[in-house]
Amino acid sequence: MAAAAHATSLPLAMLLVFGAAKILGEICEALRMPNIVGQIIAGVILGPSALGLVQPASVREFAELGVLFLLFRVGLEVKASDLLSVGKTATIVATLGVIVPLAMGYAIYRGGGGTNIESLFVGAAMVATSVGITAQVLASMGLLSAVASRIILAAAVIDDVLGLIVLAVVSSIAQGEVNYLQLAITAGLSILFTVLIFSIGTKTVGKVLPKVERKMKSGESQFTIAMILLFALAWLASQAGVAAIIGAFLAGVALAETVHHRVHDLAQGITELLVPFFLASIGLALDVNVLRDPATLWLAAAITVAAVVSKLLGCGLGAWPLGLTEAKRIGCGMVPRGEVGMVVAQIGATMGTISQQAYGIVVVMAVMTTLIAPLLLHWSFRSIVQAPEEAPLRIE
Amino acid sequence: MAAAAHATSLPLAMLLVFGAAKILGEICEALRMPNIVGQIIAGVILGPSALGLVQPASVREFAELGVLFLLFRVGLEVKASDLLSVGKTATIVATLGVIVPLAMGYAIYRGGGGTNIESLFVGAAMVATSVGITAQVLASMGLLSAVASRIILAAAVIDDVLGLIVLAVVSSIAQGEVNYLQLAITAGLSILFTVLIFSIGTKTVGKVLPKVERKMKSGESQFTIAMILLFALAWLASQAGVAAIIGAFLAGVALAETVHHRVHDLAQGITELLVPFFLASIGLALDVNVLRDPATLWLAAAITVAAVVSKLLGCGLGAWPLGLTEAKRIGCGMVPRGEVGMVVAQIGATMGTISQQAYGIVVVMAVMTTLIAPLLLHWSFRSIVQAPEEAPLRIE
Repeated sequence: MAAAAHATSLPLAMLLVFGAAKILGEICEALRMPNIVGQIIAGVILGPSALGLVQPASVREFAELGVLFLLFRVGLEVKASDLLSVGKTATIVATLGVIVPLAMGYAIYRGGGGTNIESLFVGAAMVATSVGITAQVLASMGLLSAVASRIILAAAVIDDVLGLIVLAVVSSIAQGEVNYLQLAITAGLSILFTVLIFSIGTKTVGKVLPKVERKMKSGESQFTIAMILLFALAWLASQAGVAAIIGAFLAGVALAETVHHRVHDLAQGITELLVPFFLASIGLALDVNVLRDPATLWLAAAITVAAVVSKLLGCGLGAWPLGLTEAKRIGCGMVPRGEVGMVVAQIGATMGTISQQAYGIVVVMAVMTTLIAPLLLHWSFRSIVQAPEEAPLRIE
Repeated sequence: MAAAAHATSLPLAMLLVFGAAKILGEICEALRMPNIVGQIIAGVILGPSALGLVQPASVREFAELGVLFLLFRVGLEVKASDLLSVGKTATIVATLGVIVPLAMGYAIYRGGGGTNIESLFVGAAMVATSVGITAQVLASMGLLSAVASRIILAAAVIDDVLGLIVLAVVSSIAQGEVNYLQLAITAGLSILFTVLIFSIGTKTVGKVLPKVERKMKSGESQFTIAMILLFALAWLASQAGVAAIIGAFLAGVALAETVHHRVHDLAQGITELLVPFFLASIGLALDVNVLRDPATLWLAAAITVAAVVSKLLGCGLGAWPLGLTEAKRIGCGMVPRGEVGMVVAQIGATMGTISQQAYGIVVVMAVMTTLIAPLLLHWSFRSIVQAPEEAPLRIE
């Protein structure tokens, strides 16, 4: 009854965001554009750029949980050994994909009149790939097992660790002094965490999970264990300095060879419900009003173009030995910055080292690359797209 | 990467609440107690009563969404015609189950020294059944299709409408004047909404859903439509004055005869994940420190006993024609007050008409009835419990 009083806002916010994302996704598909683009645009329309109907904060937790489950689901479809087999190429792709955007972003923003430290932050925000967007597109096209997809996923994990180090360095410079010991610990911890889970996760889960499961009396016990592992690794990842989504992805990879299909189905339900909130939340973050000033508009356009070109160049160069087609695919897959770039800008803003203008430009870059990437991916993978019915995983 | 900075709290809160609820649920099952009791106790332990590790607000949205999905899933297992066939008995059960607790609660709190209006609010908080708890227990025992279960579900819906009217009357008295026209509109709207969805929902969905589905291009289209209907009816219900969960339940009922099993599975994943947050959040609301004053402790004990006895008496009396066994089951099923009682007390507190002590007592009553009800239900239904393997729906 009176639960109505305080519950009113939740169903309405859910209805607006989920409904708009799904409807605009449908419209995009009808126009032969990626569904995901419509869902991001739904956020732009509902948010401060247009209608102002939904506060970004009101769906933030669902968005965060959504991207955790998205990466978890993708991890469930991937074998650790498959990623390790592309490790060398992925490392080169990730490294070049960090250096080129950082340099290009710094140069352009400095050339546009930014301070040294502000330009460094803008460059750092252009470093880390938002793997959620690419994973979503590849999954919906049924392409997660393609070689290029595996390299993209592995490179995104490495890219995240490198991005962490870049951010730590840039933040230290902003605070006036670089503590090399602290940096080394941060880098070491994050690498140790990732490598450890990656190398022994699958075996450990294979041994421990059946034992724990046998002792449990309540229903859906495998799912329960999977969820606890997911949240635990997401939390540990964030404690180790890398993104919580990397922990969620690693949890999925560790569980991939052990859990029944039932766990996939149950996790799929959560993913189906929450991913639209993640996608719309990217659009909700955008406020196009910052682009009213022509100077800002041009600088934002230049940074956005540089963000796309620098990943295409850097990652494409790293993947060059595989041939032009694969290099193109991998480059396109690393383009979206999404929520990760925005978080870097937020940290800069919290430290008081970047202006409102720089923050606005980074958000524009993050949203635009996220809108462009699905189009680039559809185009670059068009020759090997499976029919959706045969796709091993559909997350839309 | 730096997403870590602001995402830290979410995975940790999820790990603590989900993990503790599941582990304590397991322990309770090992002790041959209902799983659900352990999950509520997990909230008590994590919350202000003991460890103070989790802020109730930090998981509020997941809890709210959890109970929406719980009722939605229960609705999916129920046919509108099955509920309508028990409508007469359910109406009598609900009506007596409103009058007796209201009168008893008022008398005891007034006798304990409460003001007239405060006693009315305490009585009103004892009116509305928290059907989520009972539904969860019945579902986990595989008993949703039993006659007593159907009467409980139908009576809980009617009870919610009656509770709304009682709350409206009590609030009006607190504000000094009763607007009969306003009351009539509120009552009429809520009854109209419920009856309308109930009577034409199933047919409308059966006609419209396949048509909409055929036009959709993206995957899991039935699930998408189901979610939109769920959020829309939850929102409309709260606009009509009844609880959002009643709307969620009605959405499930309307869809029950049309959707494929796939929608059940996907919704089940969300329910499995979020119901522990709903259950733990009830325990999180409790602060046992309010019971340090012996006078409060005794009054809380008296109110709790009255809350149990009054529903057993009132609802049992209403179900008397069905025989003692069924009357007992139905009475036990209507015992939990859970979040609904607390919301009434919150409204009273917001209006400044009830004291901190009265609020604390209502919360104790709400949590205690919710802990007692599963035990009563297990006991009263023990003769017809199915094996869990045969249960049509397991939500644990």
